Amino acid sequence: MTMTLSRLGEIGAIRTVQRFFPDPPHHVKKGIGDDCAVLEIEGGELLLVTTDMLVEGIHFKAETSSFEDLGWKALAVNLSDIAAMGGVPHTALLSIGLKPSAPADDLEAFMRGFSEMAAEAGVFLAGGDTVGVISDSVVSVTLMGRCSCKGLVLRSGARVGDDIWVSGFLGNAAGGLEILLNKKYRNRKGSQRLVSSHQRPTPRLRLGNALGERRLVHSMIDLSDGVAKDLTHICDESHVGAVLYQESIPVSDDLRVLAQDLSHDPYDWALNGGEDYELLFTASSRHCKDIEKIAADLTGGYAAKIGSIVKEKGLWLGSGSSKVPLTHGGYSHF
Amino acid sequence: MTMTLSRLGEIGAIRTVQRFFPDPPHHVKKGIGDDCAVLEIEGGELLLVTTDMLVEGIHFKAETSSFEDLGWKALAVNLSDIAAMGGVPHTALLSIGLKPSAPADDLEAFMRGFSEMAAEAGVFLAGGDTVGVISDSVVSVTLMGRCSCKGLVLRSGARVGDDIWVSGFLGNAAGGLEILLNKKYRNRKGSQRLVSSHQRPTPRLRLGNALGERRLVHSMIDLSDGVAKDLTHICDESHVGAVLYQESIPVSDDLRVLAQDLSHDPYDWALNGGEDYELLFTASSRHCKDIEKIAADLTGGYAAKIGSIVKEKGLWLGSGSSKVPLTHGGYSHF
Repeated sequence: MTMTLSRLGEIGAIRTVQRFFPDPPHHVKKGIGDDCAVLEIEGGELLLVTTDMLVEGIHFKAETSSFEDLGWKALAVNLSDIAAMGGVPHTALLSIGLKPSAPADDLEAFMRGFSEMAAEAGVFLAGGDTVGVISDSVVSVTLMGRCSCKGLVLRSGARVGDDIWVSGFLGNAAGGLEILLNKKYRNRKGSQRLVSSHQRPTPRLRLGNALGERRLVHSMIDLSDGVAKDLTHICDESHVGAVLYQESIPVSDDLRVLAQDLSHDPYDWALNGGEDYELLFTASSRHCKDIEKIAADLTGGYAAKIGSIVKEKGLWLGSGSSKVPLTHGGYSHF
Repeated sequence: MTMTLSRLGEIGAIRTVQRFFPDPPHHVKKGIGDDCAVLEIEGGELLLVTTDMLVEGIHFKAETSSFEDLGWKALAVNLSDIAAMGGVPHTALLSIGLKPSAPADDLEAFMRGFSEMAAEAGVFLAGGDTVGVISDSVVSVTLMGRCSCKGLVLRSGARVGDDIWVSGFLGNAAGGLEILLNKKYRNRKGSQRLVSSHQRPTPRLRLGNALGERRLVHSMIDLSDGVAKDLTHICDESHVGAVLYQESIPVSDDLRVLAQDLSHDPYDWALNGGEDYELLFTASSRHCKDIEKIAADLTGGYAAKIGSIVKEKGLWLGSGSSKVPLTHGGYSHF
């Protein structure tokens, strides 16, 4: 039986790639295995670089995403990676592949959304590539940013006893996607907010940078594949385990209403839904008050303490006095 | 009638993108419109960044390119962009989209070719993205490099009276592709060299860097779309025109033999073929000897003087005492 990529899995694929580049040179402070690569180009500040590829039919569909939203989101998901390192983004490259028969308006709409997000984030588009494709559209954005050495936050810094935090609400993007696929819920109160979470995520740039610069957090990642899976990355890189407290997981009223209507467990969306692009971070309990204040000031929302880092490896979900292993059903790329 | 991307054309598409970002911030020394973006991240050296997307069915086909060759070429075409600025590459990001049903060996083979080229060029892979696709595979490489301020060479520096030079032979890659599509020519003497030019182009890194650092050239570009089209980019950016001398265009004996067999004009391949990834540059005639020597030392081959930069805008092909306008039939991306 042939070993296919779907059997190899995403982690296996990344390991295959990584195996060919075992020894990072001096200027690569962090290579594969975090939200961004970290380069020390010359003294002082660090250069952060990240790239994400979005493929039609896999990451977006014409029915659930306009080209304008796609432009916004293609940049937003990369901004979120810079936020998760504690950095400040500055320059993007955009490669876009569209069918030659596609309306020029699609590109125009894409650029409207892309440039709107870029203006909010203070990012300039300095280059890229425009190509034709045979069938499915594809977008690849590379984003660069800066970060001070002291403000850099990796996935690998979590310590036993750390509180686990998230910004904003979880599961809203998954709820929004559900609404887009089940059109009848579209016109309900609160639906638009959920849809908007899916189509136009807000990267937590100011929060990520402030948490890093003020050295309030030990580790950080952005939530692209769902808390269960993304927290596993922090645990793996930090060689620790984690317990999440279900009661503390921030689920919006909008999502609760939708969950009730669809008889779906809202915590499934919150834990496994993905695409929330909130920040997940761990910090010493002595910074609790500072973090709450900064989150309130910089996101207009709040950050919630949803668990603890523990010594025993693995991921658990606690509810009341019970504790069960949490097997992540987050998004897999193959 | 809807304006499609194919009617808008590649230049139109790039203009559409560019229109949304009219004002480069201070740190962007060169944005859209050269082989790389040039960023001044902090004092001293410049950061070069370039990205290229290769799409199955458009840029590569399983019948004409193995995954191993594709891995090599995906990096080589980006290295060639760094070479064309006079820079030295150091760090790559790789995004690759394959079908989940694809054999894991395809990824392995791709990485073999990619890492081989990387080792030759001294480049480390520091990050990227692995994604699934529905149908056509897609590869996007972003490459970073450094360049001193004095060694940077743009497309826009050509001056009236400059000699126009190219490294190596032209049209070999186009000839190689022709052989791959006409299998019966595969086993002929010289065929493998042409095929290899197509499948495994050699970016002219040392030559590009030496020409820049020694300030021997006024403008430079790499040959991806054919001399006729790529020279037009230099002319447009430099607000000049150019005359090429057909007799001086370096065509290999291998290509001449193939051209005779196929009753094809070898100069069509040389001028419009594309994918040679040689360097095209312009220089004052007083540097002629130095350039010849450096090219011989660093490429093991030679550089040829193929024309002159003139004041009158446009592109001409001179042969004997006649001169005809050269309309480029180079590769168009839409």
